[in-house]
Amino acid sequence: LDYQHVQVPFEITLWIMLASLAKIGFHLYNKLPSVVPESCLLIFVGLIMGGIIYGLNDRSPPVMDSDIFFLYLLPPIVLDAGYFMPSRPFFENIGTILLYAVVGTIWNVFGIGFSLYGICQVKAFRLQDVSLLHNLLFGSLIAAVDPVAVLAVFEEIHVNEKLHILVFGESLLNDAVTVVLYKLFRSFCEMPTIKSVDVFAGVGKFFVVGLGGVLVGLSFGFTAAFTTRFTKDIRVIEPLFVFLYSYLSYLTAEMFHLSGIVAIISCAMGMKRYVEANISLKSHTTVKYFMKMWSSVSDTLIFIFLGVSTIGDNHEWNWPYICFTVIFCLIWRALGVLVLTFFVNRFHVNTITSKDQFIIAYGGLRGAICFSLVFLLPEFHRKKLFIAATTVVILFTVFVQGMTIRPLVDLLAVKRKQESAPTVGEQIHIRFLDHLLAGIEDISGHWGQYYWKDKLEYFNSKYLQKILLREYDQPKSSIVLLYEKLERKHAIELAQAGQLGHGPAHPSFLSSDRTVRTDQKLEETPNPDVLDNMHEILARNLYRIRRTGPAYNRHTLPGDSEPTERAKEILILRHKNL
Amino acid sequence: LDYQHVQVPFEITLWIMLASLAKIGFHLYNKLPSVVPESCLLIFVGLIMGGIIYGLNDRSPPVMDSDIFFLYLLPPIVLDAGYFMPSRPFFENIGTILLYAVVGTIWNVFGIGFSLYGICQVKAFRLQDVSLLHNLLFGSLIAAVDPVAVLAVFEEIHVNEKLHILVFGESLLNDAVTVVLYKLFRSFCEMPTIKSVDVFAGVGKFFVVGLGGVLVGLSFGFTAAFTTRFTKDIRVIEPLFVFLYSYLSYLTAEMFHLSGIVAIISCAMGMKRYVEANISLKSHTTVKYFMKMWSSVSDTLIFIFLGVSTIGDNHEWNWPYICFTVIFCLIWRALGVLVLTFFVNRFHVNTITSKDQFIIAYGGLRGAICFSLVFLLPEFHRKKLFIAATTVVILFTVFVQGMTIRPLVDLLAVKRKQESAPTVGEQIHIRFLDHLLAGIEDISGHWGQYYWKDKLEYFNSKYLQKILLREYDQPKSSIVLLYEKLERKHAIELAQAGQLGHGPAHPSFLSSDRTVRTDQKLEETPNPDVLDNMHEILARNLYRIRRTGPAYNRHTLPGDSEPTERAKEILILRHKNL
Repeated sequence: LDYQHVQVPFEITLWIMLASLAKIGFHLYNKLPSVVPESCLLIFVGLIMGGIIYGLNDRSPPVMDSDIFFLYLLPPIVLDAGYFMPSRPFFENIGTILLYAVVGTIWNVFGIGFSLYGICQVKAFRLQDVSLLHNLLFGSLIAAVDPVAVLAVFEEIHVNEKLHILVFGESLLNDAVTVVLYKLFRSFCEMPTIKSVDVFAGVGKFFVVGLGGVLVGLSFGFTAAFTTRFTKDIRVIEPLFVFLYSYLSYLTAEMFHLSGIVAIISCAMGMKRYVEANISLKSHTTVKYFMKMWSSVSDTLIFIFLGVSTIGDNHEWNWPYICFTVIFCLIWRALGVLVLTFFVNRFHVNTITSKDQFIIAYGGLRGAICFSLVFLLPEFHRKKLFIAATTVVILFTVFVQGMTIRPLVDLLAVKRKQESAPTVGEQIHIRFLDHLLAGIEDISGHWGQYYWKDKLEYFNSKYLQKILLREYDQPKSSIVLLYEKLERKHAIELAQAGQLGHGPAHPSFLSSDRTVRTDQKLEETPNPDVLDNMHEILARNLYRIRRTGPAYNRHTLPGDSEPTERAKEILILRHKNL
Repeated sequence: LDYQHVQVPFEITLWIMLASLAKIGFHLYNKLPSVVPESCLLIFVGLIMGGIIYGLNDRSPPVMDSDIFFLYLLPPIVLDAGYFMPSRPFFENIGTILLYAVVGTIWNVFGIGFSLYGICQVKAFRLQDVSLLHNLLFGSLIAAVDPVAVLAVFEEIHVNEKLHILVFGESLLNDAVTVVLYKLFRSFCEMPTIKSVDVFAGVGKFFVVGLGGVLVGLSFGFTAAFTTRFTKDIRVIEPLFVFLYSYLSYLTAEMFHLSGIVAIISCAMGMKRYVEANISLKSHTTVKYFMKMWSSVSDTLIFIFLGVSTIGDNHEWNWPYICFTVIFCLIWRALGVLVLTFFVNRFHVNTITSKDQFIIAYGGLRGAICFSLVFLLPEFHRKKLFIAATTVVILFTVFVQGMTIRPLVDLLAVKRKQESAPTVGEQIHIRFLDHLLAGIEDISGHWGQYYWKDKLEYFNSKYLQKILLREYDQPKSSIVLLYEKLERKHAIELAQAGQLGHGPAHPSFLSSDRTVRTDQKLEETPNPDVLDNMHEILARNLYRIRRTGPAYNRHTLPGDSEPTERAKEILILRHKNL
């Protein structure tokens, strides 16, 4: 027996296997996952396993290694989140999300830090040795909402798209703020004196960390899209590039102390549309499937490890500090959401209702990021107290809030997600309204989101697509793509039901009583010629919308040959229709 | 800049990226891969990179780590090979493959070992300090044909299926022999005296290593199949189990000093048909795609590393020893193939032609396995000579033989692979003949492969499928599955051509001149009812073949109620047909 030799891969594989089997186990009983969120169950499994290890070895089980968490477990989840991010609601609410993520997180950090410092001044609690700076450092790691925990809970409760993107977007983008504040306070703790220059440097650093992450991510994303232009002859390695480039963007950002999460999200969102157009359909299925699989496994491992790491001797228990931490986390988040939403609602027509506000505040779950950050703290005599407080906050938010949020959503009758995808008709109207609004914004001189979106689209189709897409000469509208997808799905369904006609049938099958029924069939299924015609009309009209889109902009002069050409084309179209 | 922190994942990602980009680069010029095998190009890239590293650092570039090779790079390739192994030609030729793999490899090991020992006795060559045992040890590592190298070259030349499976199967199954002989001679080298007991123990060990590998593999394979029964609610992690269980089988086998390659192949071949039936179509696409992708990347990395590792100061050059190694490798393999094929041809109707024999002998490429084994040798004063000889043999076989085998195949007009998949008609006939032959074998009392295949099928449908398949009540014949697959493919093609009819058409489209054309259409595409009918007939008749199959066996007495029942069913069928 030579265990040493295979130990590392063997144990990793066994852990992943355990996680997957646990997942299967939960789903064998359909009632369990509908009551208790999976994250709670997984933490519970972890607690039991930690207890067993503790009981057998008589020493603390190994805690989750922060390096493993940040380098291997977190990236797949964030990549998955970024790749499947619904870009429309995200960009529509980007202002609100950034407000929550930046101002809200800073508010929480200082709120929790200062009020805990206040608690530390109470003599009876014996906490006077915890300085203000340490409290702020603790605040900076406990304030941030965790994307993994949020995703795990919100995926299951199906609230409306806007509410989901507000909470989830905040949890992703607050990484930049957390990184900066955490590193700032940690270096302050080690400095003998703090100058005001350092504070300003910290503020400046925030922009560097956030925007730097976006830049790194976008450059890797575009490189990835560019690379997939050349994979036509070796389809099998196409999916690889999606993973390699996004992982590299994360690692590069981390290397330069930028926000890795922001980088990988920008990378995924930047490359998605071009990569999708370049790679084959099967490659794309593989990418999607593997991303989901990987993030699901990572997620499972994180929660199990969280449970395992909870057991042990790492904790220093102090009732007041821990209780007040939980209370302050709740209070400051609720206050922050109320205040920020007040300002947001003043500038928006489509306001955030008080129910939504409650769910945003209540959905502020903490998770493995806090946990990893608290273990990365430099050694000092109260570290174990911080670990205990962090663990309690995480368990409280995941168990209490995570388990009660679904009944609360039901009770408050929060608006749910539309289950059905938009129809082709809806999509055409949305696209039409976008162009209309962009035109109105341009005329009225108010450069809002539609104006910028239109500009971006123009830039995209004029330059980016030419560089990044393999087959530029035939740009397909997203509606045509959707139509093709639906056709494909329908075709597979037909084939599975055995109702697809192909190959010559024997003429003797066509008896007289059958022809009546086939005539009825004909009314339901038009013959290919008719469909071809419809297809053509649809494609041509969409092309018109596309072509006339940029005419609202100032890039093309209205006095050019365009109008006559357009008139001619309209004439041709009319003629054809008649 | 914090490079230390991200070094390990960053460098791994960069290496994989380099490998993938090199692959893309080769395929940009279509003519290059058609002349030079990819393996040669990759080794060439590796040589250049090694030269650059050597030139910059002024010391040998790092050699490929044997642990990394055996634990991380080899398993994906072997898994891919096992999972996509065409099982029919493999099992039809299993006797011949085993003969080549076991007897052939032993023949080569002793042939090369003894004749090199003879060379060492020539005083002028100054090699008298290399003992017989060391020569045999060297022979044991240089004799084995390498699956990675064989696959890389044979994938591109498209010889007929039988020839391909003979060379490739041998290269896979000789692992057990190589492992045993290599470890045996290595332990002999360290022993003071060798007793005859040790030699017999070695012979016994061969069976343990080979059959143990099969057992470990099959048990993991069946566990994997059993696990996928319960993944209906969490489709996303289905592909994971295929990878986890097969990797675990490899690691477990390695842990117990069994043949990991044999284990992973048995695991993959054992689980394939059950897993395919249990998991969803998209999961299966992901499994297939990811396996291909992973093995392709592993393969690329191995050849690049081979090139890099060649450069450096690890070599001791001795012209006679190295030249004679190459010559003996060629001669003993050619002789072995001739002698073994002589015996094989005496017992088979379908003989191996002399052209095929030449290609089998010529296709005995050596690769990274030899290379990793030679670095794993215990330190002794002539190790560098062995490394040099191994490197030369690998480069000779990969470059000279690998690049000339394609022109030779053309020149000799070796029978090529049939490009088209068998039609449904062919499949039905093959299946029919199988049953017929099984019956004949049973009656004549000669228990050949058809008899055992039939027995296995019976055992499979009676016990294994009930345990391992999720939906046992509806067992689908492989022909029905093929039919469904073709239907699906056809449906997608139709959808892409926009010729699929769905949704109600407006009645006004059906003008009078159209109806004529639609009537013509009707003759080409039968209406769904007719197709349903055909489908049903096909499925029922196949079911009959399945059901009546085991009647040839001795498990069921012919006097049971079966015949009357059968007669009744035939009557019903006849009636329906009329």
